[in-house]
Order: sequence, then structure tokens, then C-alpha cells
Amino acid sequence: MRAPAVIGEASDSTLRVAGGNVSVLDQTRLPFAVERRVLSSLDEAARAIRTMQVRGAPLIGATAAFGVALHMRTDASDAGLTRALETLAATRPTAVNLAWALARMRQALADLPTAQRAETAWSLAESLAREDIACNRLIGEHGLALLRALPQRGPQALNVLTHCNAGRLATVDHGTALAPIYAAHAAGLAIHVYVSETRPRNQGLLTAWELRGAGISHTLIADNAAGHLLARRCIDAVIVGADRIASNGDTANKVGTLLKALAASDRGVPFYVAAPVSTIDFECPSGERIPIEERGGEEVRRLTGLDARGAIASIDIAGADVPVANPAFDVTPARLVTRIITERGVHVPREIAGLGAKR
Amino acid sequence: MRAPAVIGEASDSTLRVAGGNVSVLDQTRLPFAVERRVLSSLDEAARAIRTMQVRGAPLIGATAAFGVALHMRTDASDAGLTRALETLAATRPTAVNLAWALARMRQALADLPTAQRAETAWSLAESLAREDIACNRLIGEHGLALLRALPQRGPQALNVLTHCNAGRLATVDHGTALAPIYAAHAAGLAIHVYVSETRPRNQGLLTAWELRGAGISHTLIADNAAGHLLARRCIDAVIVGADRIASNGDTANKVGTLLKALAASDRGVPFYVAAPVSTIDFECPSGERIPIEERGGEEVRRLTGLDARGAIASIDIAGADVPVANPAFDVTPARLVTRIITERGVHVPREIAGLGAKR
Repeated sequence: MRAPAVIGEASDSTLRVAGGNVSVLDQTRLPFAVERRVLSSLDEAARAIRTMQVRGAPLIGATAAFGVALHMRTDASDAGLTRALETLAATRPTAVNLAWALARMRQALADLPTAQRAETAWSLAESLAREDIACNRLIGEHGLALLRALPQRGPQALNVLTHCNAGRLATVDHGTALAPIYAAHAAGLAIHVYVSETRPRNQGLLTAWELRGAGISHTLIADNAAGHLLARRCIDAVIVGADRIASNGDTANKVGTLLKALAASDRGVPFYVAAPVSTIDFECPSGERIPIEERGGEEVRRLTGLDARGAIASIDIAGADVPVANPAFDVTPARLVTRIITERGVHVPREIAGLGAKR
Repeated sequence: MRAPAVIGEASDSTLRVAGGNVSVLDQTRLPFAVERRVLSSLDEAARAIRTMQVRGAPLIGATAAFGVALHMRTDASDAGLTRALETLAATRPTAVNLAWALARMRQALADLPTAQRAETAWSLAESLAREDIACNRLIGEHGLALLRALPQRGPQALNVLTHCNAGRLATVDHGTALAPIYAAHAAGLAIHVYVSETRPRNQGLLTAWELRGAGISHTLIADNAAGHLLARRCIDAVIVGADRIASNGDTANKVGTLLKALAASDRGVPFYVAAPVSTIDFECPSGERIPIEERGGEEVRRLTGLDARGAIASIDIAGADVPVANPAFDVTPARLVTRIITERGVHVPREIAGLGAKR
């Protein structure tokens, strides 16, 4: 019998798997409080994804795999498998890693005797989680080579702009967009990160929190400031993650990414997308076909922070009577993407369709 | 003796001048509370501008004129005039209407006997305020002609995106960017306004509040969503105001404007700047020469809204230990500006230098 696998030992690991149990870091409480939630059922896993306790395309995929595995313990029938897959698939529409992870689970489980499904499902979910960490380390190495090749500015730190959180908090560990930054920091390269706030849900605060924990120099900015910083040549490169990459290289990522890509392109600043191959939707020919999730208006109207006494509190900046539109993602056309960084290497966008054949 | 002039009779007028007194609407309390502040001294006027109780380039100019006039009542000496002009000039660096209004006051007062300065200053400040209203009405008429000329989309409303607040709240009345929208609404044209939140200070909430009061259909969006809406062809035109227009047409406006201009240009959507001629800095050859105000990080870290009991409350979304950069404006190059709308008419950006000669 092999030793029990432990994934995510730190108290603030996004996903912890130990002794047959799984828990997640509740990211809706960050950066104000570090709290974990045990996931003990399919419905709890689905809810964690839907409410964004768990977020980031790779982490959503891994959590969904455990959601299936948890359900196999109580109902490993064909109907149970179908319910698990359908419940999880319905949580969030844009991130393709979710569909990818569920497809892997289906392939592995559908033809198995029901008695074997629970153990196989758990084991595969663990493999997917470990695979995510391994991919992200490779993304970091490939991305570091790109950063090293940027024109030097003397003794000044390299200034990188990122959007949203595509760091370790968006993955099982190590991050996608932040993986090259962690690799650069580990290699002793002086690096400074501009972090855009990422309204409406302010995932930039997660990035700032995570970078602070890692001892990496950073500056928080309002999303609106990115154009000014790029125009005034304060940024050497932009690196973002992705929720789904079409086979032509068009990239869906957190809403606001497109605006940064346009500003980078306008000033000739390289714009990199970092994501595992599992984020590429080889069936999707172009960005127009990517479904864009529309989320509730309360995300724009209501904000959470710390009140004067230091307690977590929410305020309404607009009333329920103010009409709101809240698309959660946008699509950056491939023509604005300088390179896509995956675990396989560094690609020009038009090449990525070829990665599908080699899977 | 002529009847006392009354400007701004409504309880929520931005600037009220009546019986020799002046008060302003405290915009730092909007949209949560409607409160007025009486300005009784130069220092109160300067503070109102600096703390953004009063904001918007045209309204800053008019308020500064009254700041000079108030000071002339207590110290109309040359030293007093110099102090008034210098104190007000130091409040905010980017909006050129401030410098313009102060220059007009200096020209009118410098060669006058001190005994005549107080009355002349007040009278000129009133003229500047009335002039602002008149200019904005003309901007509305010229802008309406542009909106009417846009391709019709059948029975659907015309969809206009604006950024920040360049409405009546940014002026003595009527607005600059919103003037064409008010004119369109008055003319019975079906119009819908997408309002970007405008972090960090959320002036989009002022725009939503003002449009609601005027009965004009609107939707609030996070700043990040503008790229997506433009890419998906939900927007027929973008109209913004300006804080300073260089003589080559480069336009400084609230930070985030540049990102909208890039997204509009990328999709061939017209991008209009609406501002009085007083916003054009004929001495400034291009946008690189426009000073960009850097404001405090607490604007990004702290947000105000209503708490669960409906009381005005602030929360900190980031601690004082999170480093912040907070440029308040950015520069949109003339090549991204389709037309500039002034009280004189509709101009291609390269023509505006010619408006200086005709002043």
C-alpha cells in the first residue's frame, strides 16, 4: 500500500488533499481572512466553484475533478456519474479547463465497473492536481527565458503588468501568469509587478497578497491606469493567464484583458498569455465562439473590505435600482498576443492548433 | 441697480450664486447624500477644489473664479490678488480651465484700483459661470448633429459609452460629454448610455445618478467591461469630456479614457471629445507636455458607499502597506479622436489650433 498522498500542505494552499479528504481556501474571504472550507460532497464542490470560493481556470478544473470523485463515493452508478458531470459543467461557462477535467474523468470512469469508480476517480483527481503543478513549473521556466530576452534597462527592475489573478491562487500551485515571475524572482532577476485591481471582483488584491507573501515587489493600480503606464513606457511586458484559448489563438480571459492588450500593442510592448495546454479549446475555431459569462450586477454594486474596526464588511456603492451589465470575460484577438506560454514551450498564437495533434 | 443674479437655483445645482453668496454641491457625498457647502473664503474654495467636493474641469474653473472674488472682499491688494491666484493655481495641475479662469481674473483685475476689484471680480466670476452654461448648450447642439448622423440601427436606441462624469455635475450646468445626450433626449431621440464606473473615485456613479434624475436610460459597467462591449458592437459612439486638450488635439482626460479610445479605434467606433474652447491649451504643443496629477493611494485603497444600515461608510479594500500608483489622468493621442466638439462647432483634432487665433 502506498503512502497517503498529500497535496497542498500549507495553511493557505488553494487545494489540500490528504487522507482522502479535500479542502479549499475560501478566496471570497481573501485578502482579509484566511479560511478553509472542507468539500464533502458534489454539491459543496459545485457551490465552491459557482460562488468563486475557488477560482482560476486550472484550479476550477482540479476542484471539479474532486467534485466527481466525492460523488462517486456515495453514488457511483451511471446516473450518479452523469449527475456529477452535469452539475459541475453547469457551474461556470467560460473556463475550458472545467470541461477538460470533466472529460478526463468521464473517459476514465464511464467504462469501469461501478465498484471501481470511487477509487479510480480519487486517484485521477489527484493526478490532475499534480499535473497542474508540474505544468505550471514548466510555464515558469519557459516564461523566464522570455523575460531574460527582454531589452535590459540597466540596473532597473523589469516591470511586468498582470491582470486579475493567475497566480498560485488560480491554480493548485505556482500559477500560470505569475509562474515566470516566481521563476525570475527565484533566479535573482530584479522584477517589479504592476497589479491591476480587476474590478468588479478585485482579484488584483489576491495577486498583491500572494506577491507580498512571496516577497516580490509590486504596485497596485486601478484598472484604468494601465493605459497611462503603458503609454509612458513604465511597463516592459504584460503577462496574463487565460480561461479559454481558441485554436486560432484568440484568448478569453478576465474582463479588462483586451484593454491591456490593445494598449500594449499600441506601444509595442510584448503581451504574453501563460496557460497550460488544457486551456486551449481545440474544438473552438475563434474567439467569437467562446461563451462569455454574464454575472450578477451585485458584483459591481457591492464591495467588501475592512471597516473602521477592522472587521470584514460590505458596502453598496450603487443601489439595486442602478442597472448593471457585468460580463466576466473578454476576448483578446490573437493579433494582439505576442506569445502564448504553455508547459510545452513558447508559441506564436497561430501555432497552437498544432499542439492539439500531439496531445 | 440691476436685480441680484441667481445662478443654480435647484437644491442639487453644482454652483449656486445668489445675493452675493456662493455655495457648491459636495460631490464627495454623492450619490449617497445631497449636501451643500457654503464657500466664504479663498481657502474654502481652494479646499473644495483640492478635495474634489467640486470637480470637472469647467466647474473647477468657475469655482476658482469665485475663490478669487471672495478673497478680493477681504484683501484686494496686489499681494492679496497674487495670493488668491497662486493658492488656486496650486490646487490641481491637469485641468487647464483652472489656469484659464485665473488668467481671465488676473487680466481683468491686475490694472484696476483695489477699491474696484471686489465688485469687478464677482461680476466677472458670474459671467464666467454663465458663459460655461451657454457654451455647454452649444456643445449639446453640435454634438446632437453628430449623433443624428450616426448609422441608424432601426428602432433600437443609440448606445453611447461615456467615462467619468462630464455631465452637469462637472460644469455649472448642462455638461460637456453629456450635453449632446441631454440634447438628444430632449429632441426625442432614443438613447441609452453605458456608464463606466471610473475607478478609483467612481465618478461613473455621479453620471448614473445624474442620468437617472434626467430620466435617461443607462447601464453601469466596470471600467474593464468597455473593451468587451465595444468588441461585441454594443456601442455606437463614445463621448468623453476633457481636462486639457493640447493644440495638436492630444487630449488629457480622466484616467482610463485612453483605454476606451484604443478599443473604439480598434473597432471603428467614433470617439468624440466634448469640451469648451477654454479646455484647449494653445500653448501646449502635444500631450507629452501635459502634467499628469498623481493622487494619493488611499483613493485606490478606500471606498465609500452605504453600509447594511444605509449609513454612509468607508471600507479599506487594501491596507496602507499595499503600494499604490494613482495617476488621475491619461492622454489620448489625437489620432484616436474622431472629432472634438466645442461651442464653436465640430472639429477634426488637427484643426483646433486654429481656434486659438479666433479667440
